[in-house]
Amino acid sequence: MADAVPGTGPRTRVRRLPEKSVTDRSALHAVLDAGLVGHLAVVDPDGQPFVLPVAYARDGERVLVHGSTGSRLFRALAEGAPTCLTVTLLDGLVLARSAFESSMHYRCAMVLGRCRTLRGAAKLDALERISEHLQPGRWAQVRGPSPKELAATTVLALGLDEASVKVGHGPPDDAAEDRDRPVWAGVVPIRERFDAPMAAPDLAPDLTLPDYVRQWRR
Amino acid sequence: MADAVPGTGPRTRVRRLPEKSVTDRSALHAVLDAGLVGHLAVVDPDGQPFVLPVAYARDGERVLVHGSTGSRLFRALAEGAPTCLTVTLLDGLVLARSAFESSMHYRCAMVLGRCRTLRGAAKLDALERISEHLQPGRWAQVRGPSPKELAATTVLALGLDEASVKVGHGPPDDAAEDRDRPVWAGVVPIRERFDAPMAAPDLAPDLTLPDYVRQWRR
Repeated sequence: MADAVPGTGPRTRVRRLPEKSVTDRSALHAVLDAGLVGHLAVVDPDGQPFVLPVAYARDGERVLVHGSTGSRLFRALAEGAPTCLTVTLLDGLVLARSAFESSMHYRCAMVLGRCRTLRGAAKLDALERISEHLQPGRWAQVRGPSPKELAATTVLALGLDEASVKVGHGPPDDAAEDRDRPVWAGVVPIRERFDAPMAAPDLAPDLTLPDYVRQWRR
Repeated sequence: MADAVPGTGPRTRVRRLPEKSVTDRSALHAVLDAGLVGHLAVVDPDGQPFVLPVAYARDGERVLVHGSTGSRLFRALAEGAPTCLTVTLLDGLVLARSAFESSMHYRCAMVLGRCRTLRGAAKLDALERISEHLQPGRWAQVRGPSPKELAATTVLALGLDEASVKVGHGPPDDAAEDRDRPVWAGVVPIRERFDAPMAAPDLAPDLTLPDYVRQWRR
């Protein structure tokens, strides 16, 4: 299933605004690779859904997430509860001439499935991949997880077999009869940026900002 | 229930990292007011959750969202299916000396409940509030929704009775034995910013960028 076309499965076919659906896997990968935080759903035994913000990383045709072994919601995911991971990047505000056409520029990937728990070397490797996705170059510098820290961490893999991607871009799509309305129309782009790093208050003064951090860009 | 303390209900008590829990309503309001996109969950009849990115606005002790009447997931929400709206603002990367303590700065609000469908004047008012949250000053300028556009739009209200807020901030929280490790530690702040507006290609040249748009800040 790993070569399935995103957005074409019975549960992932994009029904609303299908013109915004993107069906190549490279687009799915690109959205997942560009995001830093995903939103992961889990349903409790009463049918109440919860949406948790999570760090993640893509590893080939799966995404990796981690959480606390003490979390009842993460335990349910580890036991194979159905889930959904959505990663949304907000790229701009679309100012149309009508309220109805006013919208946003975005890239959104949605992945459905059930997670598999990773253990041993696969677990450690996944933690490194998540770390390297968020803080590239950092894994080799920090103290790696201790046995106790590993035991406190659940690491899960979710396959990309069932996924969809939607991308909203382009100028406002006003109806012909609205285009002569004397109101400014266009797009206000939104970008996430890194600000200047702030050293920890107890950092030794001889430890200057490393090059690999200086090179991070959003 | 509207004066309930966030994060203290049986389903919203913050169990993981409770030191990051914030229990005053003004903090809940502030996170919801600062976000542009939320992630809304809905569970299908087979128990599969979906997480949808949505525009929203806070209106007092409730949040307002809108979607298409043609969306099967929005129809389930309109019929009172249990839901969760999570709004996450990512504020920075925390570079600790250990992998385990490396994390993020964030503000996250989670609201649980069931939605109520808004109709008539309440529906139109809610659409104005969502528009003004995202594009302040714009509602008075654009063409308002036509009867046909209103009929194509579902507008829902979700009370803030059951909610929690978590805020992660501050310098890396390294264990004493890691603090002497010769590795840079600190925080790389992340900020969402507006870039220079781009006029629609078919915009009349005499329509210059309005002051109310020029004043938008993130």
